[in-house]
Amino acid sequence: MGEEAIVEERNMVDISLKDLSKKLEEFAKARDWEKYHSPRNLLLAMVGEVGELSEIFQWKGEVDRGLPNWEESDKEHLGEELSDVLLYLIRLSDICGIDLGHAASKKILKNAIKYPPTINNIT
Amino acid sequence: MGEEAIVEERNMVDISLKDLSKKLEEFAKARDWEKYHSPRNLLLAMVGEVGELSEIFQWKGEVDRGLPNWEESDKEHLGEELSDVLLYLIRLSDICGIDLGHAASKKILKNAIKYPPTINNIT
Amino acid sequence: MGEEAIVEERNMVDISLKDLSKKLEEFAKARDWEKYHSPRNLLLAMVGEVGELSEIFQWKGEVDRGLPNWEESDKEHLGEELSDVLLYLIRLSDICGIDLGHAASKKILKNAIKYPPTINNIT
Amino acid sequence: MGEEAIVEERNMVDISLKDLSKKLEEFAKARDWEKYHSPRNLLLAMVGEVGELSEIFQWKGEVDRGLPNWEESDKEHLGEELSDVLLYLIRLSDICGIDLGHAASKKILKNAIKYPPTINNIT
Repeated sequence: MGEEAIVEERNMVDISLKDLSKKLEEFAKARDWEKYHSPRNLLLAMVGEVGELSEIFQWKGEVDRGLPNWEESDKEHLGEELSDVLLYLIRLSDICGIDLGHAASKKILKNAIKYPPTINNIT
Repeated sequence: MGEEAIVEERNMVDISLKDLSKKLEEFAKARDWEKYHSPRNLLLAMVGEVGELSEIFQWKGEVDRGLPNWEESDKEHLGEELSDVLLYLIRLSDICGIDLGHAASKKILKNAIKYPPTINNIT
Repeated sequence: MGEEAIVEERNMVDISLKDLSKKLEEFAKARDWEKYHSPRNLLLAMVGEVGELSEIFQWKGEVDRGLPNWEESDKEHLGEELSDVLLYLIRLSDICGIDLGHAASKKILKNAIKYPPTINNIT
Repeated sequence: MGEEAIVEERNMVDISLKDLSKKLEEFAKARDWEKYHSPRNLLLAMVGEVGELSEIFQWKGEVDRGLPNWEESDKEHLGEELSDVLLYLIRLSDICGIDLGHAASKKILKNAIKYPPTINNIT
């Protein structure tokens, strides 16, 4: 197993937003796609992917947690659409100069103040 | 600086999807909100946040990378809306039993095969 | 009841897409808002309204037809959000030079060919 | 030209929301699709179509009114996606028991009070 594969494996175990962000930047550069990556282009591309994600759930009625009766191929498809939303969201944040990981951590802290815990929290 | 604060600081520097996922699970448990977190509830909540994100960009015409003329408070607001989309996306993935970091890494590899690089890539 | 009020009343009974389109054009002109009504601005505004519509349904789990247990004020709110999506959709179509009523009629005919009836249709 | 064709032609000229609503109800009945038409199913189907609409605009940067340089086939495609959003929106309204034309007329009047005209309005 080469060094790159090991790094890849590690990333898959617990990948960071910055790891993904860096991959996406390299991906765009290597294809000369940076010229297309304006904020509103990326936002609309993300809305397109949210649409594809919604299509998976549209005729299903209520869906149980863990998707107990779904085919493996449908879960695979779902994972891809969730990923597409994530990747455009990260890229949009980068192009806007927003540190998404930082912003998300701050938002959780802000929410924790806005909505105090109602139950004894063991953590 | 206590240990928790140091961990918090580290997370903000390079937070992983699993870190965020764990925080969100604890957050929901501590508020007895798990009962609301069904797949389609979370999906619609995410669509709601995508709407709020779009509202920021709706009357602006084309927006330059890095948001050169934006007020700091508008960037702050944008960071919050991007975060809200991310947090519901991560939570939706978890509730569906999808490892989002894994899925996203795989999707980038799949895209790299689908769209071969067109430019000499230095990486 | 003046002539305008009678026309208004009639429109409310069976308003056409062209009626709404004309009202929206006059509305924008009277407020000097036409300069904001570019295709992508209107599209993002519509996505924003789709988000607000989704927020109404987000924590409700499955919802029955006819909304049997909803408060009158919640139905009123729903009617407003449905309308906001419609109004931006009509305006977007107009600004793009698309006759939405014509396009929708054609789309129904196309769908009828794509998906032939499976049940004895009385019409 | 048979009576039905004449009616069709008239509808295409100035079709009402109620005309479309009735067509959609017949369409669903004739295919035994009413069982799928729950409020949240239709909402997610509409979000899916909003995604397809957004995809048309996603890599284009700012788009001029009237779509001056678009191919006829692209305008045709746009008309179809705009229609798909409209048709699910109308069907969603119906299934919720909301009179969309009435609601939209009321919303315009409400907006007119909220945002008084700033320019001499000839109407």
